[in-house]
Amino acid sequence: MSTPSLIAADWGTTNFRLFLYDQDGKVIARHAANIGLKNLGVLSFEQALQSVLKDDFAGHENLPFLLSGMVGSRQGWIEAPYAACPASLQTLVDGLVKAPSDKYDVSIVPGLFAESPGTGLLNVMRGEETQIFGLLEQEKADGFFVLPGTHCKWALIRDEKVQSFSTHMTGEAFQVLKTHSILGALMNNDRHDDEAFLLGVERGMYNRALLSLLFSVRTEALFNNIKSESLSSYLSGILIGSEVIAELERHGHSPVRLVGDGQLVDLYEKALAFAGFKDVTRYDGTNVSEAGLWAIHKLRSNS
Amino acid sequence: MSTPSLIAADWGTTNFRLFLYDQDGKVIARHAANIGLKNLGVLSFEQALQSVLKDDFAGHENLPFLLSGMVGSRQGWIEAPYAACPASLQTLVDGLVKAPSDKYDVSIVPGLFAESPGTGLLNVMRGEETQIFGLLEQEKADGFFVLPGTHCKWALIRDEKVQSFSTHMTGEAFQVLKTHSILGALMNNDRHDDEAFLLGVERGMYNRALLSLLFSVRTEALFNNIKSESLSSYLSGILIGSEVIAELERHGHSPVRLVGDGQLVDLYEKALAFAGFKDVTRYDGTNVSEAGLWAIHKLRSNS
Repeated sequence: MSTPSLIAADWGTTNFRLFLYDQDGKVIARHAANIGLKNLGVLSFEQALQSVLKDDFAGHENLPFLLSGMVGSRQGWIEAPYAACPASLQTLVDGLVKAPSDKYDVSIVPGLFAESPGTGLLNVMRGEETQIFGLLEQEKADGFFVLPGTHCKWALIRDEKVQSFSTHMTGEAFQVLKTHSILGALMNNDRHDDEAFLLGVERGMYNRALLSLLFSVRTEALFNNIKSESLSSYLSGILIGSEVIAELERHGHSPVRLVGDGQLVDLYEKALAFAGFKDVTRYDGTNVSEAGLWAIHKLRSNS
Repeated sequence: MSTPSLIAADWGTTNFRLFLYDQDGKVIARHAANIGLKNLGVLSFEQALQSVLKDDFAGHENLPFLLSGMVGSRQGWIEAPYAACPASLQTLVDGLVKAPSDKYDVSIVPGLFAESPGTGLLNVMRGEETQIFGLLEQEKADGFFVLPGTHCKWALIRDEKVQSFSTHMTGEAFQVLKTHSILGALMNNDRHDDEAFLLGVERGMYNRALLSLLFSVRTEALFNNIKSESLSSYLSGILIGSEVIAELERHGHSPVRLVGDGQLVDLYEKALAFAGFKDVTRYDGTNVSEAGLWAIHKLRSNS
């Protein structure tokens, strides 16, 4: 019979996903809740955590807790300062920070920071580092690990270390342009359109004047070249194409491990194929989060 | 004594500026009103126009009216279809459209469309064409005419014609990112900071991964490299730098006529100087609007 041994969570700005592990690292219960940082309201972090310890999670309050994600940011429960790249799994263990709690034994995974290759620009991540080392538990791969989302991360992995990474605000730029700019006003009854998406990818790759290219979302609609229901696909193609070419120019066609779920990752898969990336493998985001949290717990328990 | 001979207006989405001309084209009265297209409410265009014909403008309802700007768009009083580039002053006169009105004799100036040089992308303008030909009345210049704003226009002028132009969504991108993205959340007590602005311009010019560069607004704040009150300058530098390098790569250091008023045009002047443009001349936006409307009226009266 399996014995519960760890409660861990990926606790971000929007999402919260809780996992219960047995002594072999198998996840024996899962729970998602609406207690992302921006939804906490008047709850303290301790109260929010308490509120989800029910059903399968009830009665296990004495287990160690391990949390990753924005919960470790300056706006989180307690800051777990960004650790420097190159970073290994051991770097994350060394950077664990205890959260102030009378009730629970809670450790928080640090984020990572790095200078973006070649530019000297600083980059940060929180949560994705756990997914990266979860993926490395499953496969000791070198190359790009790409984690699409609000702020897409491109991490360069060598020798089981995050050597460096960069961030693209692609998801957030898409959202604010669609919701708040003149471009969104033209969109109606959005549905995915592969042709419009790939036209956007192509233009995003070969036309480097992004602020100018964005205006073509408006003119292609004005002159009825792209239907209003396909404009959203076209805009997303432009932005993802612009992101892909930037990384391609820096690093060439390295193998890519693509992490995430759903339609957004489908889009990246299509854009990467269009850009000539042949070696692209896809990993489930929740799955590598689970594996990463367990790997950190195992290593700290052995130290 | 001067005799009123024309009432004209620059009538845009936000702004409305009304001018009364004497028989020599001198503006003898001006009025600004809050009846941009998005503020019309239940008023018809005719009612809105009637509402501003008071004071100096009263009693001149029988004069010809000439309107430029978004009032001629599909969402305006009546559509004055985009005329093709290359376009001369005569092209605008040929494209004038009468607005349906029982009370007034109203003509509307067409906008222009063009393929952006080298990209095949379509571009449109409404209102700026009138300013461009107003500037050409004052000086028969070749080169770039740059009109900063929500959607900045870079028009290539040769032989008193608009040969082509492109649009950059720089102003709107700045507004939506500042107001609605994570970047704006870090900004506080904005004040112009030349150093932060020029750092942004430099990076925007030499780092072509714009979606990645934007994230540095966040990290430079996180690591206290740029103060929260200067982040807005830094963001605006990144966007304007990215725009300037795109045009510089297409056309080199052509002479630039910079049209507009206020701080935004100051910023473009600084960015252009940073980018090595030596021949930059500045023109008042209202002034060239007035001159353009009169030039169109004069040419149509002589036809």
